[in-house]
Amino acid sequence: MVKFYHHDRPFELECGGVLPSLSIAYHTYGTLSAARDNVVWVCHALTANSDVADWWPHTVEPGRFLDPGKWFVVCANILGSPYGSTGPMSVNPATGQPYYGDFPRLTIRDMARAHALLATHLGVDRIHAMVGSSVGGFQAIEWVCEQPERFDKLILIATDAKASPWTIAVDETQRMAIKADHTYGEPRPDAARDGLAAARAIGLLTYRGPEGYNLTQQDPPGSMPAPSAHRPCTYQQYQGEKLCRRYDAYSYVTILDAFDTHDVGRGRGGVDAALARVTANTIVVGISTDIIFTPAEMRTLAAKIPGGAYAEIDSAFGHDGFLVEHDALNNIIHPFINTL
Amino acid sequence: MVKFYHHDRPFELECGGVLPSLSIAYHTYGTLSAARDNVVWVCHALTANSDVADWWPHTVEPGRFLDPGKWFVVCANILGSPYGSTGPMSVNPATGQPYYGDFPRLTIRDMARAHALLATHLGVDRIHAMVGSSVGGFQAIEWVCEQPERFDKLILIATDAKASPWTIAVDETQRMAIKADHTYGEPRPDAARDGLAAARAIGLLTYRGPEGYNLTQQDPPGSMPAPSAHRPCTYQQYQGEKLCRRYDAYSYVTILDAFDTHDVGRGRGGVDAALARVTANTIVVGISTDIIFTPAEMRTLAAKIPGGAYAEIDSAFGHDGFLVEHDALNNIIHPFINTL
Repeated sequence: MVKFYHHDRPFELECGGVLPSLSIAYHTYGTLSAARDNVVWVCHALTANSDVADWWPHTVEPGRFLDPGKWFVVCANILGSPYGSTGPMSVNPATGQPYYGDFPRLTIRDMARAHALLATHLGVDRIHAMVGSSVGGFQAIEWVCEQPERFDKLILIATDAKASPWTIAVDETQRMAIKADHTYGEPRPDAARDGLAAARAIGLLTYRGPEGYNLTQQDPPGSMPAPSAHRPCTYQQYQGEKLCRRYDAYSYVTILDAFDTHDVGRGRGGVDAALARVTANTIVVGISTDIIFTPAEMRTLAAKIPGGAYAEIDSAFGHDGFLVEHDALNNIIHPFINTL
Repeated sequence: MVKFYHHDRPFELECGGVLPSLSIAYHTYGTLSAARDNVVWVCHALTANSDVADWWPHTVEPGRFLDPGKWFVVCANILGSPYGSTGPMSVNPATGQPYYGDFPRLTIRDMARAHALLATHLGVDRIHAMVGSSVGGFQAIEWVCEQPERFDKLILIATDAKASPWTIAVDETQRMAIKADHTYGEPRPDAARDGLAAARAIGLLTYRGPEGYNLTQQDPPGSMPAPSAHRPCTYQQYQGEKLCRRYDAYSYVTILDAFDTHDVGRGRGGVDAALARVTANTIVVGISTDIIFTPAEMRTLAAKIPGGAYAEIDSAFGHDGFLVEHDALNNIIHPFINTL
């Protein structure tokens, strides 16, 4: 069941905006121990929400790395999302209408600072393990660089310490598709739906990559489907429409914009200096076919974190491997998270 | 100087449409020998044109593999293109207006058959070498499978014998972006310009890939540009706008649709049987970082062509490596094309 923390004070944003108050939607699983030493914090990716048990199959289960019988698992919905935390679909008290395209610019650092407010509210000081994959990893590493003394373990999956030019180019391309839908800017939640569907389809290309599509989206041999009726075409259309049923273009752009700001080195003397602050026992997990956060980049990230270990999952499903390969992931993370 | 061949008879299309006549724009470089045995035919990729010397740097030059002092180099603009061959911007004689979105569906096989008409017109029977990269390779391999006895050598660069689900998904995503621009369908050459720009940006992601962007599109260290003002963002925008100045959305969609039909095995007992027909001395060239036509796929293609050799160019520029790495390419192709 989703819960809400209402922070009734102004929240200053890194880029200069101010939110008059914050709502933070979150889920918890399991029970906080009397010693408050069993907290596992999960940060979610782009369009997900705080319900980890829903979007990350076979993790919040007995015997898995987010075992709710052992850990007090917390996941907060990120700022900018339409899943309950303050974002473009929230009412702007200055106008009485949703912000839509007028929501102030967010950074990954703002998201991490909102997580820290929730932790304080929950009475959580130390965090046994911080887990983040993809944009969830952005928040995780940002928060750990900000308050390194608070974390015992850090688990970074298919993510990075700074948004790369490649990932920013992917984001910009998605924004171009959204804005090519000229209904973008209209003050309604379903503005730019066709653009959003195209943007999602762009994202999916990078989440799956060549092998993922070639493995699952073959047309029947010898067939010649009508234009846009090939199996990979209808898959792209379906996935685009599916996102439009649960998401809006304004939140999507807000979070893409925040993605691009990610740089743990900002104001900390650069990425290397920021990562050198990390005292948590860290493991970085890459996926062999990930074309967003490539194995080479993951290895470099691990090497820059003091004592950082690297593990790789062999998968045909690219970046989405972090959702698909839950057994392989559990085999890596379960022993890591369970040692002191 | 571009030349035109006007074929004043109906041209039946593979999918059932008929073009009442054809114009084929083409370039030639060098002189056809008296024995007519020095023809090198080049097929161009997606949005290129018949002027190889313009779009393929350092190839049509003395000492390079398209040396016009030695070879009679021919390149025909593909059907469906706005560069002079019959396509959506041509006048539909039935209406007196350009076809725009009403142009009949093309296949790669139609394009190859149009090339064969031009060859006959030019009095070219045997072709010493057929060269195609990317969608140019689609036409090359299709034509060679149709008339294998006509070709002595076949040079396939970053291409395939059949459009893969992955490449079709990339095409569909581009169509989704174009159609998200609701001006698509309006009867004017600049319809869906914003959608076309987004589509081009999608294409570029796949042409360059992670390493290409990370090498050339870094923001200045420590900077935090405004949203969509990062260097990779302005690059995507610029490349999108640049295409819109020279191309239109209807031609683009027509050629994407044709791309998806590519399957040399159609009506020939499958890809393996079709490739087994090839008698030309063949080399397949892959690019180490190409995420459209991966090195693994290029190796498989070479292995399926009788006596086919494989060579690989090591490049950070992905699929675009075939344009960027002209020295490496020349080192492979020049000796190959010059042996008898």
